[in-house]
Amino acid sequence: MKAYHELEAIFRRRGVLGGVQSLLHWDTAVNMPDGAATVRGEQLAALKVLQHELITDPRVGALIEAAAGVDGLDPWQRANLRKMRRRWLHATAVDPTLIEAETRAATECEMIWRGARKDADFARVAPALTILVERVRETAARKADALGVSPYEALLDQYEPGLATARIDTLFADLEAFLPDFLERALAHQNRRPPAVAPTGHFPVEKQRALGVRFMQALGFDFEGGRLDISHHPFCSGVPEDIRITTRYDEADFTSALMGVLHETGHALYEKGLPEVWRNQPVGGAVGMAVHESQSLLIEMQACRSRPFLDYAAPLMREAFGGHGPDWEPENLFRLYTHVARSFIRVDADEVTYPAHVILRDRLERDLIAGRLAVADIPAAWNDGMGAILGIVPANDAEGCLQDIHWYSGGFGYFPTYTLGALAAAQLFQAACRTVPAIPAAIGRGDFGPLIAWLRHHVHAKGSLHDTDGLLREATGEPLGASAFKAHLASRYLA
Amino acid sequence: MKAYHELEAIFRRRGVLGGVQSLLHWDTAVNMPDGAATVRGEQLAALKVLQHELITDPRVGALIEAAAGVDGLDPWQRANLRKMRRRWLHATAVDPTLIEAETRAATECEMIWRGARKDADFARVAPALTILVERVRETAARKADALGVSPYEALLDQYEPGLATARIDTLFADLEAFLPDFLERALAHQNRRPPAVAPTGHFPVEKQRALGVRFMQALGFDFEGGRLDISHHPFCSGVPEDIRITTRYDEADFTSALMGVLHETGHALYEKGLPEVWRNQPVGGAVGMAVHESQSLLIEMQACRSRPFLDYAAPLMREAFGGHGPDWEPENLFRLYTHVARSFIRVDADEVTYPAHVILRDRLERDLIAGRLAVADIPAAWNDGMGAILGIVPANDAEGCLQDIHWYSGGFGYFPTYTLGALAAAQLFQAACRTVPAIPAAIGRGDFGPLIAWLRHHVHAKGSLHDTDGLLREATGEPLGASAFKAHLASRYLA
Repeated sequence: MKAYHELEAIFRRRGVLGGVQSLLHWDTAVNMPDGAATVRGEQLAALKVLQHELITDPRVGALIEAAAGVDGLDPWQRANLRKMRRRWLHATAVDPTLIEAETRAATECEMIWRGARKDADFARVAPALTILVERVRETAARKADALGVSPYEALLDQYEPGLATARIDTLFADLEAFLPDFLERALAHQNRRPPAVAPTGHFPVEKQRALGVRFMQALGFDFEGGRLDISHHPFCSGVPEDIRITTRYDEADFTSALMGVLHETGHALYEKGLPEVWRNQPVGGAVGMAVHESQSLLIEMQACRSRPFLDYAAPLMREAFGGHGPDWEPENLFRLYTHVARSFIRVDADEVTYPAHVILRDRLERDLIAGRLAVADIPAAWNDGMGAILGIVPANDAEGCLQDIHWYSGGFGYFPTYTLGALAAAQLFQAACRTVPAIPAAIGRGDFGPLIAWLRHHVHAKGSLHDTDGLLREATGEPLGASAFKAHLASRYLA
Repeated sequence: MKAYHELEAIFRRRGVLGGVQSLLHWDTAVNMPDGAATVRGEQLAALKVLQHELITDPRVGALIEAAAGVDGLDPWQRANLRKMRRRWLHATAVDPTLIEAETRAATECEMIWRGARKDADFARVAPALTILVERVRETAARKADALGVSPYEALLDQYEPGLATARIDTLFADLEAFLPDFLERALAHQNRRPPAVAPTGHFPVEKQRALGVRFMQALGFDFEGGRLDISHHPFCSGVPEDIRITTRYDEADFTSALMGVLHETGHALYEKGLPEVWRNQPVGGAVGMAVHESQSLLIEMQACRSRPFLDYAAPLMREAFGGHGPDWEPENLFRLYTHVARSFIRVDADEVTYPAHVILRDRLERDLIAGRLAVADIPAAWNDGMGAILGIVPANDAEGCLQDIHWYSGGFGYFPTYTLGALAAAQLFQAACRTVPAIPAAIGRGDFGPLIAWLRHHVHAKGSLHDTDGLLREATGEPLGASAFKAHLASRYLA
C-alpha cells in the first residue's frame, strides 16, 4: 500500500506540473508577445522533461509492480494504477534522445507548415514532414512493442487509451455505408425548405462576448474558476479550478464564435466536473479525447444546435445585437445552424459531412505510419480521397492536405477521436433524454440544469474509472456505437 | 571544468523554472479568477520545491567544491560559481520542514493581513505575525550560521547579496543627519513657489494606456518581447524575452499610473539588458534588489520627474487628454511631480521623505529579528518612530504598521534596498550625465537613446559580474554613497 501511495505522490506532482504547462499553453495563445516564442519553447520543454523524468524514474517500475500485488486497492485505486502503468509504459518505451529528436522535428515542421499553408505549397513542407513522420514511426514502433499493439494503435493510445483499429474499422465502415446516401437525402430535404439566411450587420466583439458569457452562465460555467478570452484558434485549457476557454470573433458574423464558445464550454464543464478527490491522479482525468470531444459536441451539436435551444436563444441574440426581421426567427437560425454542404475545410464542416473528413485522414495517416504512403504522395492521395468520399476535389493543398496542424506538429492518431466523440455525444444525449425526458423542454427555457446534472453524474464524476466503452455502457446501456448518431441525424436532417 | 559545466546545466534548469514561476505570478495578479487561488498556490509551491531540490541535490555541494579547484575559469565563470555557492548555502541552510512551515505561516498571515489592514485592526493579525516572525527568525539563524553573518544580514543577503548592517548604518546615518533639516528647507522653498495643481478631468484608461505605451516606446521598451497590463499593484515580472509590466489606472488622475509605468519600465529595461549569453545563470541575473530598484528610480525619479522630461511630455499629455490651461504647462507638472509632503503611506511618498519611511522599517525589523521588539509592540514603536522621524503620527494602523505587505508575507530585509536603490540611481545618473553631458537635453526631446546606451553598457550588460559596490565603482568611480543623492535633492528641491 505504501508503494501505491508513493506512486500517487509522484503522479500528483506530475499532475500539478501538467497544470502549469496547460496555463503556459493558454498564455502562449492569448498573451505571449511574438518575440518570446523561443523562450516559451524552452519553458514548455523543461516542464515536459520534468514530467517525463518523474515517471521514468527507475523506482516507478518497481513501485508499480509492488502496488499491483496489493489486495486492498479499491476500484478507483485499481483503475488509477492501471492508468499509471499505461503512462509509465508510454514514457519508458522511448528514450530521451528520440523524444527530443521528435520534438525538434515537430517544431521545425510546424514552423515551415505555417508559411506553406498560407502559400498552398506542400512541396515546401514535404522534407520536414518526411523527417517528422520518420521520427513518429520510430516512436510508434517502440511504443507498439511496449504496449503489445500495432504501431498506429500505439499512437491512438496516447489520445484514446485502448482504442483498437478494428473498433474504428467497424464504426467507420458503418458510417461510410450510411453517409453518402444520407447526405443526398439531407441535401434534397434541405433544398425543399426555405434557404437559411445569415443575419447581417455589425456585431461588435464586446456584444458577442457578453452574449457568449450569458449562455456560458446558463450552462453553469463558473467565472470564479475560469475565463473566456480571445485566441486565433478556440480551445479549452487550464485546470478544473481555473479553466481557460478561448474563441475568436468575426464582427460580420456572430454565429460562429457563439457556437465555438458553447463547444468549448462543453469541454470546460467536463473538466470542472471531474472528481475532485482524484485531482492530479490519472484516474481523475478525462477518459480520453473521444469522451472529451463528446462533451463539447454534446453541448454544441446535440443541445445547442437544436430547435429548443434556438427557441430560447433567438430572442436573446436579437436583443443583444438589436436585430429585427425574419432572419432572427428561431426557425431561420435553426436552419442556419444545421446547414449541410459538401466542403473542403474540416473545422467548418457540418455534422453530416464531418465524419467523411475524419475517415479520410484516418486512412491516410494509417498508411503513412505503416509506410504504405510516402509523404510526397499525400496531396494526390488526399485529393483522390476527397473525390471518392465527398465528391469534391480541392483546388489547392491549402484547402486540402495542408489545412490541419495535426500531422505537421506530430499529432498522428488524434483525428478518429473527433468522430468517436460525435458518436458518443449522440449516444449520451439520447440516453440522458430517455432517462430525463424533460431535458429538451428545459433547454428550450435556457435551463441546462437537468442535462448538466445527468452529465455530472454519468460522465464527469466518473473520471477515468472506466474506459470509453465501459463509461458508455454504464451511462447508456451499450458500448460506443453509431446508431444513436444515425438516429440523431435522421431526426434532425430528414424530419 | 566538467563540474562547472554540470553546475551550469543545473542552474540553467532552475532558471527556466524560475521564469515559469515569474509568469505564474504575473498571471495570478493579472488574469487568475479568485477561485483558483488554492490551486495556484500548489503550482507555485511545486515550482519552488523543484528549484530547491535542484540545488540541494547532494551532488551540488561536491560539484561546487570540484569547480572551485579549477584554474581555467574566466572572471564571469568565477563570479557565476561564487553566486551558485551563495545560493546553495541559502538553500541547504534550512531543511524542507522549516521552509514549508514558513511558507504556510506566510500564506496564512498574508491572508489575515488583507482583512486586518482594511479594518485597521492590528490585533487580528498579531498572532499569525508572531508565528511568522518566529519562523523567519529560525530561518535567519540557520542561514546566519551557514553564511557567517548576523541573522538580519542573512535575511538582507536574500535580496542584496553581501549587504552588511554596518554599511546600512553608515549610509542611513548620513541621510538621517541630512534629511530633517533638508526637508524643512525644501518645504519652505516649495511654499514660496506657486502651488502645484493637478489637472482635472476624466482620463479614460485607454488614453492613459496609449500615452504610457508611447513613453515606454520612447524608452526603448520592446513590445515584441513584453506587455503592459493592469493589476492591483504595479510590478515587473516575466523573463528578459517576455517582460510583463503592470500598472493600475485612476480615471480621475492620470499622473500616478503614468509615473508607475515609467518606473516599471526602468525595471524592464534592466531585465532586458542583462547579458544574454548568461541567461538563466546566477551571474546573468540582477546584482540585487538595490541595483534593480536603482534602475526603476533612475528612470522615474532622475529622468522622468525632471524638468527636461516634462518639457517633452507635457504637450503629449495635453494632446492625449485634450487638456488646456496653465495646469498643463511643464512648469506646473514639474511642481506636481516633485511635490514634497510629510505623509503616512510609503508608496505614495516623495523622494525626499521616502528614506524616512525606510529607515523606520529597517530599525523595527532589525529589532523584531533580534527579539528586541515583540510583535504586540509594533504599533506603538511604529507610531513613536514616525513621530520622531517625520513629525507625524498615524491615526490608525492602516496608515501605520499595517500598510505594507512585506512583513505579513515574510519579507524581512527587503526595505533597505529601496533607499539604497535611490542612492544608486542618483549616483549612476550623475555619472551618466557627467560622461555624456547631452543626456538631459536629449531627454528634453524624448530621446532616451544616450541614457539607455550608457546604462546598457555600465549597468545592464554587467549582470552580476560585480557586487553592488563593485558595479558602482566601475560605473561611477566610487562605491555606493549618499552624496550624489543629496546633490540631486538640493538641485531639484532648493534651486
